[in-house]
Amino acid sequence: MTAQPVEAVPDVAGVMRDMGRRARACADALRLAGPETRTAALTAIAKAVRGHAEAILSANRIDIERARGAGVSEALIDRLALTPARVEAIAKAVEEIAALPDPLGVETERWTRPNGLDIARVRTPLGVLAIIYESRPNVTADAAALCIRSGNVAILRCGSDCLDSSLAVHAAVVEGLTSVGLPADVVQLVATPDRAAVGALLTGLDGNVDLLIPRGGKSLVARVQAEARVPVLSHLEGLNHTYLHAAADADMARDVVVNAKMRRVSVCGATETLLVDAEVAGRLLPPVAEALIAAGCSLRGDARAQALVPAMTEAGEADWTTEYLAPILSVKVVDGLEAAVEHIRTYGSGHTEAIVTEDTMVAAEFLNAVDSAIVVWNASTQFADGGEFGFGGEIGISTSRLHARGPVGAEQLTSYKYVVRGTGQVRP
Amino acid sequence: MTAQPVEAVPDVAGVMRDMGRRARACADALRLAGPETRTAALTAIAKAVRGHAEAILSANRIDIERARGAGVSEALIDRLALTPARVEAIAKAVEEIAALPDPLGVETERWTRPNGLDIARVRTPLGVLAIIYESRPNVTADAAALCIRSGNVAILRCGSDCLDSSLAVHAAVVEGLTSVGLPADVVQLVATPDRAAVGALLTGLDGNVDLLIPRGGKSLVARVQAEARVPVLSHLEGLNHTYLHAAADADMARDVVVNAKMRRVSVCGATETLLVDAEVAGRLLPPVAEALIAAGCSLRGDARAQALVPAMTEAGEADWTTEYLAPILSVKVVDGLEAAVEHIRTYGSGHTEAIVTEDTMVAAEFLNAVDSAIVVWNASTQFADGGEFGFGGEIGISTSRLHARGPVGAEQLTSYKYVVRGTGQVRP
Repeated sequence: MTAQPVEAVPDVAGVMRDMGRRARACADALRLAGPETRTAALTAIAKAVRGHAEAILSANRIDIERARGAGVSEALIDRLALTPARVEAIAKAVEEIAALPDPLGVETERWTRPNGLDIARVRTPLGVLAIIYESRPNVTADAAALCIRSGNVAILRCGSDCLDSSLAVHAAVVEGLTSVGLPADVVQLVATPDRAAVGALLTGLDGNVDLLIPRGGKSLVARVQAEARVPVLSHLEGLNHTYLHAAADADMARDVVVNAKMRRVSVCGATETLLVDAEVAGRLLPPVAEALIAAGCSLRGDARAQALVPAMTEAGEADWTTEYLAPILSVKVVDGLEAAVEHIRTYGSGHTEAIVTEDTMVAAEFLNAVDSAIVVWNASTQFADGGEFGFGGEIGISTSRLHARGPVGAEQLTSYKYVVRGTGQVRP
Repeated sequence: MTAQPVEAVPDVAGVMRDMGRRARACADALRLAGPETRTAALTAIAKAVRGHAEAILSANRIDIERARGAGVSEALIDRLALTPARVEAIAKAVEEIAALPDPLGVETERWTRPNGLDIARVRTPLGVLAIIYESRPNVTADAAALCIRSGNVAILRCGSDCLDSSLAVHAAVVEGLTSVGLPADVVQLVATPDRAAVGALLTGLDGNVDLLIPRGGKSLVARVQAEARVPVLSHLEGLNHTYLHAAADADMARDVVVNAKMRRVSVCGATETLLVDAEVAGRLLPPVAEALIAAGCSLRGDARAQALVPAMTEAGEADWTTEYLAPILSVKVVDGLEAAVEHIRTYGSGHTEAIVTEDTMVAAEFLNAVDSAIVVWNASTQFADGGEFGFGGEIGISTSRLHARGPVGAEQLTSYKYVVRGTGQVRP
């Protein structure tokens, strides 16, 4: 089922076109299999991941050796490395997706027209998804599981860094699929590091790819967005803001900001700019800054913020437009809600913005005025996550407004059709 | 507000970029205006259309004279021509959209997480829509009204055939918008027939167009799909099937098929191929064929159909792949449900398919197995229409599976955001 990685494939474009054809050919089998079969496949995949743990770990050692040989940083090697606990976590994550309700066939609306026609809106799969990702071997299982749950056929393209690990995980996925009678081609993995494979996916493989999902750094996403000839679901960045309003509770402000910035600095839900209302900056900002600095965060402020916290360096224009993904926070003192919203409108990336305030009316105005995928009142921006939303996993967070916005879980990977039931009606 | 049409604009690209900037600049004003203001704008537009009826009719006479001079067919001139009754119908259609519930701000889901976070999914506009259409002057008002109802800013590009009429209608739209304090730029109309304007729209105007909607013939839609650098919502064609199952009621079969094909042959919901179950073809097909022929329809059948209805000419492979949009129907005798579904899978365009049967189980199987935007049981495929679905108008019928599928009304032109309300939660 799973080809061994090869450094050069003579006809990558042809191989990819064939993958597209095979993906489309099994779309109906997965769509019509029924929720129980999809659940059984996911459970079987989790079991197969556990059963293949040794093979996965030894494939991972090959990836790590290759990465070390190529002088890859230890931070990247840590992202790449699997342990028995991490393999177990992969299996567990697939089981969590198996436990989610199957979204397909669910009627989301149903109504009757005056002429007696009964119309229902029913969830269907999207079709064939191509997912292009970088060096986290767990994504192979995660993405496969979300696609199976949502009835979508998947073509996976992993980073060359984790190709051996991914092939080993993929072998478990295929074992799980076929053990319940689903076609192996429901989840295909591109088995070559040849970058021409990505180019082929961007063309849509003769109409056999319905949606491209890039998961990775900015350059990957930007390339996919610029070159794709099929629809793309992606987020470019999370340049998120937390705004401390004049009526913010001081302790909550401190705890929320420290968490929003420092819980994990590398996630897309991390706050990158703190906006503090001028009315209360003298009271609120120093203790917040102190707690941030104690947590290891560097601060860059505008003149008014610097005046209150001398430990800040000066923020330049670039600081308002940078997604640090690092223990750095830019800080600006703003004159009221409108100025905060205006700053977010100018510099935000439409991902996640939060306000801390005890004033219900002001909160409502902020939540309405800010047009980001996620707007938060009195909580950390780091809740921007499909798991935290209860979606049981996510393929990413969309900053697009089309199709899906915010965390993309199994339900967001579906389309719908209309089922019209009549008794012989003809249209006048 | 409304520029006069000019044959040549020195810098079309620059003019279009400016339209994009102005569209984006007023998006928040429309989004934040509130439902009452949007309703008031629509009511005012309907009133202004009536008030400007004379100007609209005389502009239309210019379009018609130009079309006659260019030797345009009378059928096209009929599409283009306005009468006092048609102007009234335009105003009426805007009023119907004014009467629709405003989709924005509506919570479509709301739940509480175990940590107490309260999460709501709330409808938002998409942003800026560019709509490219051909020679029906009523589309200018229809499209503007649907965009206003859904809170989306519009850039309209009409066919050069109806530019004068559209400018006159647009003047009424602008009068309505500004009379309630909304910016005139909420609906802009490209005031030049220069085709370079379309090319500019396809680029997305520096990120200021969020969605392109082509409404028109196949060549327009195909060009937009091939060249657009921004997402496109469109349907290519409605190659629709009606399947007469063995358990079909004979009278219902006849009435439904005649309506599905002949009510209006030029609409995308018209049936183009009739599939008849071999088990009952001898009984069902002759009376259906007789009624179709009496209604003026030509029939093209496969060998088995021809044997039953000698008046049929022979259907070739091309007949299964042609959207006639004419009083022609292709007819095929199939061996059971599975063969019918397989024919639809092979030749259908994913628009609308119907089954006529008294067998509930067979109907359920058909409705599940056929993956078209609209699947119909015991009714005419010509119900494929936003108005007939109760959407109060439509911008088209999407055969895409992304974002919106089937009839696209105001609600389908929205996105959503997540509103998260907490009490100081931080993420562990």
